[in-house]
Amino acid sequence: MAYLNENYLKLKAGYLFPEIARRVNAFSDANPDRAASLIKCGIGDVTEALPDAVREAIHKAVDEMGDRSSFRGYGPEQGYEFLREAIAQNDYKSQGIEIGAHEIFVSDGSKCDSANFLDVLGSKNRIAVMDPVYPVYVDTNVMVGHTGSANDAGRFEGLVYLPCTADNGFVPELPKEAVDIIYLCYPNNPTGTVATREQLEAWVAYAREHKAIILYDAAYVAFVQDDSVPKSIFEIEGAHECAVEFRSFSKNGGFTGTRCAFTVVPEKLMAYDETGDAKPLHGLWSRRQSTKFNGVSYPIQRGAEAIYSDAGQAQVSALIEHYMGNAKLLAGGARAAGLTVYGGEHAPYIWVKNPEGVTSWDAFDKVLNDANVVITPGAGFGSMGEGYFRISAFNSRANAEEVARRLQDIKW
Amino acid sequence: MAYLNENYLKLKAGYLFPEIARRVNAFSDANPDRAASLIKCGIGDVTEALPDAVREAIHKAVDEMGDRSSFRGYGPEQGYEFLREAIAQNDYKSQGIEIGAHEIFVSDGSKCDSANFLDVLGSKNRIAVMDPVYPVYVDTNVMVGHTGSANDAGRFEGLVYLPCTADNGFVPELPKEAVDIIYLCYPNNPTGTVATREQLEAWVAYAREHKAIILYDAAYVAFVQDDSVPKSIFEIEGAHECAVEFRSFSKNGGFTGTRCAFTVVPEKLMAYDETGDAKPLHGLWSRRQSTKFNGVSYPIQRGAEAIYSDAGQAQVSALIEHYMGNAKLLAGGARAAGLTVYGGEHAPYIWVKNPEGVTSWDAFDKVLNDANVVITPGAGFGSMGEGYFRISAFNSRANAEEVARRLQDIKW
Repeated sequence: MAYLNENYLKLKAGYLFPEIARRVNAFSDANPDRAASLIKCGIGDVTEALPDAVREAIHKAVDEMGDRSSFRGYGPEQGYEFLREAIAQNDYKSQGIEIGAHEIFVSDGSKCDSANFLDVLGSKNRIAVMDPVYPVYVDTNVMVGHTGSANDAGRFEGLVYLPCTADNGFVPELPKEAVDIIYLCYPNNPTGTVATREQLEAWVAYAREHKAIILYDAAYVAFVQDDSVPKSIFEIEGAHECAVEFRSFSKNGGFTGTRCAFTVVPEKLMAYDETGDAKPLHGLWSRRQSTKFNGVSYPIQRGAEAIYSDAGQAQVSALIEHYMGNAKLLAGGARAAGLTVYGGEHAPYIWVKNPEGVTSWDAFDKVLNDANVVITPGAGFGSMGEGYFRISAFNSRANAEEVARRLQDIKW
Repeated sequence: MAYLNENYLKLKAGYLFPEIARRVNAFSDANPDRAASLIKCGIGDVTEALPDAVREAIHKAVDEMGDRSSFRGYGPEQGYEFLREAIAQNDYKSQGIEIGAHEIFVSDGSKCDSANFLDVLGSKNRIAVMDPVYPVYVDTNVMVGHTGSANDAGRFEGLVYLPCTADNGFVPELPKEAVDIIYLCYPNNPTGTVATREQLEAWVAYAREHKAIILYDAAYVAFVQDDSVPKSIFEIEGAHECAVEFRSFSKNGGFTGTRCAFTVVPEKLMAYDETGDAKPLHGLWSRRQSTKFNGVSYPIQRGAEAIYSDAGQAQVSALIEHYMGNAKLLAGGARAAGLTVYGGEHAPYIWVKNPEGVTSWDAFDKVLNDANVVITPGAGFGSMGEGYFRISAFNSRANAEEVARRLQDIKW
């Protein structure tokens, strides 16, 4: 008898986005005249065109595939050397961070990598996640059996939730109980906030002391505006021994539909067998990728490489400037309505505190009804997100301006 | 303390292809004058150009991405409807097989899917694999802890190995012990042989009787030459309740470096919880893909769709004819040398029986030394592959003709 993985039965139905869709549909049905002017600032998906440099590079690579002398079949599962070198050079070495091309693993997405990385980790680790949190970290741990069931608040037994609040600047305190795996995400989704160098130093020190591993999601690093904010966990001394970093071309190059990302696994990163012997994870991850993955499409890797060209860098800068301009407008609109606003300075998300006593879903309904705008209720990201909502800055400038005006006019 | 997944430590080092590379390098160093005329018929990677129709479709989609009005961000994790519909219509409905678009899950590779499908299955299943076997089926089960250690012959404790020999036409007998998950691959890699409708009927009957699941790898289906050979497990009555099918554009459209594949999970397919209650796997796989995958690159999905256009179909047929022409030449060459040849009629692989007493690696060395040709020793695919070697038909016609001549001249 073929058994299924019963851990899947513990998962909550994808509650957040279906519920948003249900409410938006009901609202649109009741207000057909307003459907055309509805503006969505919910999901964190890019809206602007794929950069010229990227498209040119993909076109060129596709043409190469049309000639048997330049055709490419299976590529290296870890990514082509040209792309691994470009990443190591531009994202790390040029910033004074020692990361070699062989420590870069090219993939089709950071979501996939953060999920798949659990493959090489053992089943007895105590897992810590931030709250509010990107739901994938939680769900993938549920799927592999690292948790019990969820309680009424949606928290899974066996996970350690690290509260991120206005009081701690949305960077969690070190846990009182020892944990083995810690998910950190900065610039943060959903709060749009960043961690300081000192805060990351404290986490790295914690990880080294406890022989723990930090899974550091830096998918939004391109939005960091100045050097006061650390861009990579590997800027922190000692992180090479205790951290993995996930990065993506989704949000800088607009690759959400084009798909390319990478994970940095330093050679010095260690995990432990049951006898306490340290073993490097680099080889295990490489073996995992060789066995369960076949590399990213060759033309797409050429497209990603083009992001590091001079033209690509200029085009990506313009995209970032566009989205960050939106963020500023949106934050201004919310502030003008008297709301307290977090994030949005080094990230494309604004995290808005609701007026006292207004729940996340109440705020969702109010913004939908009063402003004809879809936002994301903070409670959808975890119990500590209750009382907040997230506005995404991924939109056209005209829409961002209009949303800012409408937010400003809401009477709370 | 962060624990690693100790199951990875049970894996054999990727012995086969590194050992081939070592011997080829040693030979080339010792015979520098012959390096230029060395021909590789080892790895199963396509060699001919990506079809025009596919490249045109990718170019067009990349151009769409350059305009914000036609730009596409995140797509559906299960694949775009246009591609799922094209697959369901052309590969199934038009063949009289009832498979709907919603049962098709588009992915970046069959290797990935066959590995990832274990995610939704429980940990207590008894797993059966063919011997010789595509090593990924074995290694991915080792990785998730479904096996003990390997013995000296490389067989892992806890797996049920199903011998595939000339006596059974390389289609395994039904197992004497009950198994829950069965990997079948036809047209077969490495033997190049096919299963008859009657043989698949027996396997489906077995699976239904034991409430087992067949993981059916049909990556090489495009090479089937006539309707006497089943193309899909779903041609067999009852298979919708007990089988998953993996297919790929790698070997028909030449997508090994372009990456697109799909998996068919029928709505009727059931697995069981520990109380014996049947639950459909379709929703679990869909949830798995939504959570751990972000869909295939949009331009690449458009390229895959183009395979089903009239032009695409004609171009793929020409590719198949090319490789199958090679297979015929290569089989002829081996036969002319007095060897017994299997496969190669509905698959791009020739499975050659060594003369009595010649081991797989002896044959490898002899073909390398006498013919300056690289083949794959059968023992690399499992203990029942000992005494055979595999020749891949993925090559230029000129190379295939030359290899056929050289094989013919070997004195065994």
